[in-house]
Amino acid sequence: MAFRSKLKIRFGDIDRAGIVYYPRFMHYFHVAMEEFFAAELGVEYHTVIDTHRIGLPTMHLESDFSRPFSYGDIMEVEVRVLKLGRTSIIFGYLVFKHGDADPRIVGHNVAVCLDMDSFQKMEFPKWLRQLFEEQIAVSLE
Amino acid sequence: MAFRSKLKIRFGDIDRAGIVYYPRFMHYFHVAMEEFFAAELGVEYHTVIDTHRIGLPTMHLESDFSRPFSYGDIMEVEVRVLKLGRTSIIFGYLVFKHGDADPRIVGHNVAVCLDMDSFQKMEFPKWLRQLFEEQIAVSLE
Amino acid sequence: MAFRSKLKIRFGDIDRAGIVYYPRFMHYFHVAMEEFFAAELGVEYHTVIDTHRIGLPTMHLESDFSRPFSYGDIMEVEVRVLKLGRTSIIFGYLVFKHGDADPRIVGHNVAVCLDMDSFQKMEFPKWLRQLFEEQIAVSLE
Amino acid sequence: MAFRSKLKIRFGDIDRAGIVYYPRFMHYFHVAMEEFFAAELGVEYHTVIDTHRIGLPTMHLESDFSRPFSYGDIMEVEVRVLKLGRTSIIFGYLVFKHGDADPRIVGHNVAVCLDMDSFQKMEFPKWLRQLFEEQIAVSLE
Repeated sequence: MAFRSKLKIRFGDIDRAGIVYYPRFMHYFHVAMEEFFAAELGVEYHTVIDTHRIGLPTMHLESDFSRPFSYGDIMEVEVRVLKLGRTSIIFGYLVFKHGDADPRIVGHNVAVCLDMDSFQKMEFPKWLRQLFEEQIAVSLE
Repeated sequence: MAFRSKLKIRFGDIDRAGIVYYPRFMHYFHVAMEEFFAAELGVEYHTVIDTHRIGLPTMHLESDFSRPFSYGDIMEVEVRVLKLGRTSIIFGYLVFKHGDADPRIVGHNVAVCLDMDSFQKMEFPKWLRQLFEEQIAVSLE
Repeated sequence: MAFRSKLKIRFGDIDRAGIVYYPRFMHYFHVAMEEFFAAELGVEYHTVIDTHRIGLPTMHLESDFSRPFSYGDIMEVEVRVLKLGRTSIIFGYLVFKHGDADPRIVGHNVAVCLDMDSFQKMEFPKWLRQLFEEQIAVSLE
Repeated sequence: MAFRSKLKIRFGDIDRAGIVYYPRFMHYFHVAMEEFFAAELGVEYHTVIDTHRIGLPTMHLESDFSRPFSYGDIMEVEVRVLKLGRTSIIFGYLVFKHGDADPRIVGHNVAVCLDMDSFQKMEFPKWLRQLFEEQIAVSLE
């Protein structure tokens, strides 16, 4: 089963319209991805950045929002590796209200593998590629 | 010429990788849209929400990021009305580093016209439709 | 023992100086207070606001920061009721790096009891006062 | 006259209670301080950090909030140098609603001069001390 990060909507996430300010979901995509690294890949994202000096900046982002979230809702953010290239990766996100069968938000982002010292695009190192590949297998189960 | 909102990258916008945290750009899209309402439509977005009780929640979002922004950069966020439907609108955004000819970020969002009291989708009222239509004309100039 | 909320420093919490942007801690104070309501008072903060129509806006805030937090650190935010008045309450916060004996941040805020409909200050209702009083007792143990 | 930074309350600044989420003001204190550097000291804050490698992390923060801000309000954040030590500085902030005579928020923070390379406290370099001293004089006018 795909990984899900359980996150609570916070008081400060709500906007003037009484629902979650949509840029906050992009933050939660990122938070869920960080959790995905720790829980599924077995390496903390901060270690990838600070120790391995690899960054994953977003080049493309797409998201559909079908129903809003309110204060007090619990989100489950499902994270998958949708596609893996030599120098890029696509992460998919589904955001469920806890208990719901259908996601309220469906999104994905394309990130590139970046050498944090030269700030140049690079191929994924073998160890990281392997970790991502295992996740693609999990997603297809 | 299309409207541009001049915004400064702030100290707190920067992430662990030393560049702007990408969810911040979704916030800046929104801020630029708020400025667009005030400067081009002649009605403040807070008036649209609080007085006219009309909201514009985002249903779809798409964005391409070609080059990062750093602390100290000045952004110019260009806002256009790309398309206008009976109950929905597409806003386009181009984010330039001040002085650059080419945008570093190209995005758009689809927003629906929402009755803030019933939280139901509604047709744009005539006055608001008219204001948006004038902007499409401007964009085509 | 006083309540502690375990929270992770996120990628987006870090500022240009490579440490947590200090306004983020004020957000985490609030998040920990929300967790405190759910876990210790037995009532969700969103229920207090949305159902009981009681808000707790901050009138005074004070905080000392002795050592910074970095990306990847786990925080434990201890929340206590330090003092309870007829219409106001003081919450105390200690922020520990997980595993540390001494807090890196010590803060408190004074919040008033607000009628969310009239936006006027009011006395705490008896049920809420009682819940807070039990927490003062816990803090003194 | 003391420096004032004019800032607009944004849609995303508002919380579930319909007023500005108070941690946002700490962000606006920082934004106004950044503006103060550019406008009054004549050196951009990002230059201080990135070129001179000097940071100003906050060690103490205090703030009083007497009246809330709503969506659509324009803030004027007054920034002053209240006190200057060998290795620390106190910045004062007054937040006015545009047009008001009295501030709604009064705050200050104590920041230390930090060597960004060693992350050790240091004395302010002479050029920076001089710039701050001139500001104290302005504040007393």
